[in-house]
This record gives sequence, structure tokens and C-alpha cells, in this order.
Amino acid sequence: MTGPLKIGIAGLGTVGAGVVKLLAEHNRLLSLRGGRRLKLVAVSARSRTRKRDIDLAGVRWEKDPLALATAPDIDVVVELIGGSGGVARRLVERALRSGKHVVTANKALLAMHGAELAALAEKRGGILAFEAAVAGGIPIIKALREGLVGNRVTRLYGILNGTCNYILTTMRETGRDFEVVLAEAQAAGYAEADPSFDVDGIDAAHKLAVLTGAAFGAKVNFAGVHVEGIRRVTSMDIGFAEELDHRIKLLGLARETPYGIEQRVHPCLVPLTAPIAHIEGVFNAVAIEGDFVGKTMFQGRGAGQGPTASAVVADIIDVARGRHMPAFVVPADRLADKKAAPMARHVGAYYIRLMVQDRPGVIAAVSRALAQERISLESMIQRGRSETGEVPVVLTTHETEEARMQRALSRIAKLKAVAEEPCLIRIESF
Amino acid sequence: MTGPLKIGIAGLGTVGAGVVKLLAEHNRLLSLRGGRRLKLVAVSARSRTRKRDIDLAGVRWEKDPLALATAPDIDVVVELIGGSGGVARRLVERALRSGKHVVTANKALLAMHGAELAALAEKRGGILAFEAAVAGGIPIIKALREGLVGNRVTRLYGILNGTCNYILTTMRETGRDFEVVLAEAQAAGYAEADPSFDVDGIDAAHKLAVLTGAAFGAKVNFAGVHVEGIRRVTSMDIGFAEELDHRIKLLGLARETPYGIEQRVHPCLVPLTAPIAHIEGVFNAVAIEGDFVGKTMFQGRGAGQGPTASAVVADIIDVARGRHMPAFVVPADRLADKKAAPMARHVGAYYIRLMVQDRPGVIAAVSRALAQERISLESMIQRGRSETGEVPVVLTTHETEEARMQRALSRIAKLKAVAEEPCLIRIESF
Repeated sequence: MTGPLKIGIAGLGTVGAGVVKLLAEHNRLLSLRGGRRLKLVAVSARSRTRKRDIDLAGVRWEKDPLALATAPDIDVVVELIGGSGGVARRLVERALRSGKHVVTANKALLAMHGAELAALAEKRGGILAFEAAVAGGIPIIKALREGLVGNRVTRLYGILNGTCNYILTTMRETGRDFEVVLAEAQAAGYAEADPSFDVDGIDAAHKLAVLTGAAFGAKVNFAGVHVEGIRRVTSMDIGFAEELDHRIKLLGLARETPYGIEQRVHPCLVPLTAPIAHIEGVFNAVAIEGDFVGKTMFQGRGAGQGPTASAVVADIIDVARGRHMPAFVVPADRLADKKAAPMARHVGAYYIRLMVQDRPGVIAAVSRALAQERISLESMIQRGRSETGEVPVVLTTHETEEARMQRALSRIAKLKAVAEEPCLIRIESF
Repeated sequence: MTGPLKIGIAGLGTVGAGVVKLLAEHNRLLSLRGGRRLKLVAVSARSRTRKRDIDLAGVRWEKDPLALATAPDIDVVVELIGGSGGVARRLVERALRSGKHVVTANKALLAMHGAELAALAEKRGGILAFEAAVAGGIPIIKALREGLVGNRVTRLYGILNGTCNYILTTMRETGRDFEVVLAEAQAAGYAEADPSFDVDGIDAAHKLAVLTGAAFGAKVNFAGVHVEGIRRVTSMDIGFAEELDHRIKLLGLARETPYGIEQRVHPCLVPLTAPIAHIEGVFNAVAIEGDFVGKTMFQGRGAGQGPTASAVVADIIDVARGRHMPAFVVPADRLADKKAAPMARHVGAYYIRLMVQDRPGVIAAVSRALAQERISLESMIQRGRSETGEVPVVLTTHETEEARMQRALSRIAKLKAVAEEPCLIRIESF
């Protein structure tokens, strides 16, 4: 292991360029820490002429990224193309099949094909590393697979999408509405032109599925994630949450239940006493609860050139040192094939905000609908008179089953005095 | 590597018993995750009869812990005796010299002899692992050495002693004084009968010295740590800090300066906007700032049976998998022998609380003393009339050099109107 580790990088966008910069800037340091020299041998990207502010002198340019997968002078392929299929998938599969190590930041690919890729890596003796796929610079995969390896994970949850957290933070701080803040975030480069991947919770769900696999030694099951985004969160609800000493966060949560593994991504009310309530702006955080370690939380920047490059290079150093580890904590053929717990079985507390006609008897009708499902109220906020005749009513409930809550809610929505679709947000306690 | 990993444990106090429990309870899980069976072969402890609630059937009892260091049927020695010298040191040295791997939770030993032990381990090919020595269950050594290995660390700081953090949190919440809260903490088992190791900052300084070594690839230098404890923190100061939107925390901080590596343990005013201000009670947290990753923070329980056992077992799994890594990030012969930056060269902002005679001209005299050292004031709080004639005056300064501040302070202390020794607390910004 004293020869240099020969690296090929596919994809030279923000992250790829960051990795090239980091490898160059800290070259001597990394050789010392990795026990051998790290040598960038070849790169491949769509455009050769794009301005990237990196030095590629002496580095081979491959027109076809797939060439990296079989090049005899490459030990590790770094896949930074992205996407759950297409060339990224073909590249990773072919590289693993050639016995090469693969480092990837591709959460969509892992969310869709994680278990197969892990099996492929093991079969040919390669390392499949993906620290950069989840929570950017936070070394959370390493924490799960190694640092907390002695624990049975009882629950994990996290703020996994910086764009959503930035939007929710800004909505709270400025009192402005979702659409306005989203447009600003797009202008500032914090949100994509097509924001649906982020704001509809899909990106967070990809990351949650990968985390769940590593935490529970289970086959990654993206289809088993219940996903809701943040489009329906209003600044009115953010204000009511504050009144209730809570903050609204888009969380990904996973735990084992008697019905299978529950994976959920949706807006949550989290109490201000919980550390995760204070993770603001573009920061990410992941909390892991283990039977021996208790509560832990890890926070840092969830995206961006520097943090993601930091995670990719940590994986490269693991490869340089030959630190093998099953991709999802246990050997691929031992990964549990656990059922996804149906959302209807979820048990939790709820926040419901209604817009109702300001007249007698409405609260009684709403309360009756809840009582019929044996849901007990924890608190109620009713705002006084209104000129339009509609006033918000906020109810919070004790723990109940999601199925009951949904039945009660559809009854409530049908009440004549209820003016628009009720807003439901789940309350989490930690 | 398919044979079992044979383990010997020296020390069966709270942590040792926890490790035995964890190894038993998760035996199958750990074999799967570690790639081989983990087998507890022998133990040694002072008392054989003490009630521990663990099953040691089939485990050899060694009267002399040193026998573990040379026993041919042991691969890894787990040292949980504690203390920077004596039998713990002899055991670790002898085990490493015999080519065995060593897992230890002994921060005092590492703080005093870390560099030598790292060299000894490398010479004989053993792994020296010490995740449990710092911040209990938080996998911070792994984060520094591996997860953030691509970064040049620009600063690190943390709440490294749960006892102190518990005392400061309780003082703030109850308004009670240090001595009262300490006595309660002792009664509740959160503080030792002889609390000086904790409350005088020595334990935190041991941990800081170890962290600094791993963060900067430098020889552990405990003697270079400037240490102050929390005995002089009053509830009056905690109250004033709150008024200034700050909280008082005992932090350990390290960074490289033009004068060498600065390592400090002392009470700090931290702004409420900083995540570390919200780490309360017995929790620990470590923040690492790197040139690529930016700001990260890791939190969890800093002590206790479960969390510490979790860290020890993570190290054992690393040994089982043969995951070698230099103890302090770079090979022992490449560890930098950096100077300790003198505290007099520290640059920062300051909080000063005086008790002064309530009469005209006092503030003018105090201000003059500061002005003579070119220290500029940031804010002042003066409390109104008092029956005893003494009133508190709180000053906060802009950044200045510690030497200047100390000179100004001794002038101030000599003023006739200043009634007791001034209280100085450094203000940190993050």
C-alpha cells in the first residue's frame, strides 16, 4: 500500500471541482494522513471548456466517463455526475464490477439501488463509500457505521435538506410567505430553478432512505418513505408554532415499529427545548439515538463545494488506507428486508389549523369529530373576531394513530363552517 | 481475520462493566458488524467480589492486570483503570510493546504520554485507540482523524466536562450559588467527593490536549494548556451574562496562532446565537472548524456507562476489522512539536465585573485604567443604589491582548473604590 492511490473523477460541477481543489491544496497533508500519495489520474465531464478555476495539467481527460470504470491505471472512481440512473449508474456498476473502489455523492442512486450496489462491491472486493451523499460535510455515515457501531439504533431524525431549512428559517424571521421566500432563495442561488426536488421533500427522502439502511442494517427502501414537502407551510402556522413554543422543521425520521421500519419526511413541530429546533438556515443536522449511547446529534453544512469535497476526500483516504467496511454496516447478503410500516399506523401528536366561520357551535362540531375517533385535545387557540368572518382555530392533540386522525380530519373538512382544507402538521417530541 | 478477536479488559468499574454488558448483549450484532466474533477472554480488577451485575462465566480472572499485556491468547487489551501513571501506564506500554492492540478510555494517560504511546504502537504494529477518552459516546476522535481528515482544522472548542456543565446549567436555572449546587451534584452522583479534577478544569484540559493532538497532528502537550476552573463563577455573573444575551460555559478551545498552538480551558461567555450555548446539563459537545468543511458540531452524553461503553466497543470493532490509523492522524515521527502560545498573547474580548463603592468618579478611574492600555469598552452595566454602599459594575471590551487586559485589571484592583477582586471572564465569538 505504499504506491500512490490513483483517482479518476467523473463530473466536474461544483463538487467535482471542489474535490480537485482540495486534493491539490492539501496534497502533502493528505499523503501523510492517508499513508500514501493521492494522484488524480483522469477526469471526465460534459464540458471541457467550462470555466472551473482548477488546474488539470497532467491529468488525462476522458471523453467517455465509462472509460474510468475500466482504465487499468485507476484504483478508485469518484462519481459526481448524479442521478439515479443513466451514466452515473452505469459508471458505478461497471467500476465495481471491474473490482475498483467507488466513492460517490449520489444519494438518488443509493436510494434506488443501494443494496444491489453494496452486493456488487462486496462480490468484487471493492469499497463503496458515500459519505458525501448525506448531510454534506457531516461525517454521519462514518458515525453510524463505525462510531456508533456498538448500538442498536432506536431512532434517527434529521434536517437533511438545506434549501427547505433556509426557506423555513427565513419565513419565520421575516414573516413572509413560502412563494416569496422561495423566489428570493432562487435568486440567491440557495434553491434550484426547478425547486420541486428540494421543496417537495424528495431529496430529503433519498438521504433518509440511505441513512435508514446504514442505521438498521436493512435494504435501502426509498419506496417505503412517506414524503410530504413544505409548500403548504404558511407563515401563519409558523407563528402559531412559536406561540406553542415550537418551531416548524422539515425532518426525515426513521425508527423500527412493530409494523416494520417507519420512514417519514414531512414538516414537523419540534419543541424549542430540542437542540434540532435551533439548526437554522442552510445547516443540516442528524440525531442518532442508540440503546447504549443515548442521544447524539451531528451538525454542519449540508451542501456546498467545500463541505461536500471534505466528505468525498474522507472516503478517498479510507480507500487509501484500505479501510473496508460493508456499505450498510452488515454484509450485503445479511441486509434485512424489512417491511415499510404503513403511515396509517403512525402514532403521534398533531397540530391542526382550521379556518372557520366565526359563529357559535363550530368548535363543538370539530370537537365532536375528534371525539368520535377518541382523539383527545391537548390545547386550543382561537383567534377573536374577523371582518371576513373567517378565523383561524388551532388544535393540538395528544398521541393518536394517523388513521384515526385522517378520518377525523376528513369529517372536519366536510363541516360547512370549515372554510378551506385543514392544515395538519405532526408534532414530534425528543 | 476470520478467527475471533480475543479481548482482555483491565478495570471493571462503571465503564468496564458497561463494556462487558454491551459485548454480551449485542454479541451477534457485533460479530456481523465487525466481520468476526468478539470473545472476552480475560478480565482483571481490584475487587473480585464487588457486585457488578455482569456475567463472567468462562472468562479468566487475572489477579495481575499486567498479565493481560503478555497473555498469548489476547489480541487487544482494553485499559479502563485510569490515571496517568501507575499500573495503567505500565499495562498500556507493556501491551503495545508485546505488539497487542490497546483500547483505552484514559485521557490523563494520553494527555501526559500520548506521543510516546503512539510511537510505541506504531513501532510494534499495534493500534492505539481512545475514542472513549474524550467526550464519552460522541465519536469525535473518529470524526477528527477520519471524517474530517481532508481539512486543515482552523479551530476547535467544546464542552468537555459534564460535571461543570451540569453545575453551570443548574446555577443558571435555579439562581443558586456554586457551593450549593456542587453539594447537590455530589449527592446526586454527578460530581465526585473530591471535585477538584472536574471543577478546576483539569479533566477538560486532559481531553483538550488529546483533541488538539489529533486535530493538528501535533504532540499532545498538556503542560501547554492554560487552565481555569469554575469555582469563581457566581450566579450574579450568570445573570449579567443572560442580560448580555450570553451564557457562561466552561470551554476547552484550541487554535493555531502565530505564537504557537493556543490551548485554553476556562469559563467563557458564549452568545445565545451559538449552538454550543444550548448544550445543557451533563451533555458534551465538540465543535470542529475546518478550512473546507466549515463549522461542524457533535453532541451527546460525555460520560456514563452506556455512552462510554459505546465508544470503547467502536474502537474494538475497528481493531476487529484491522482498521489501522496513526493515533494522532499522522505517523508518530511526523507529529509536529509546536510551541504553546503564551496566554499573554491571547487576543479576545472580555467581561469584567467589579464591586465598587457607589460614589462619583469610580467609573472614570476604571475607564482611565483601561484607556491607558488602549482597551476600548463595548458596553457597561451599572446597577443603581445599594444599602451596603457597594454596587456591581459590568464592563465588556472589544478585542484586546490578554497581557494588556491583565495589566489594566491589576491597576483596577488597586483602586480604593474597588471592593473585591475583579471577576474576569473571556468572551468568545463563533
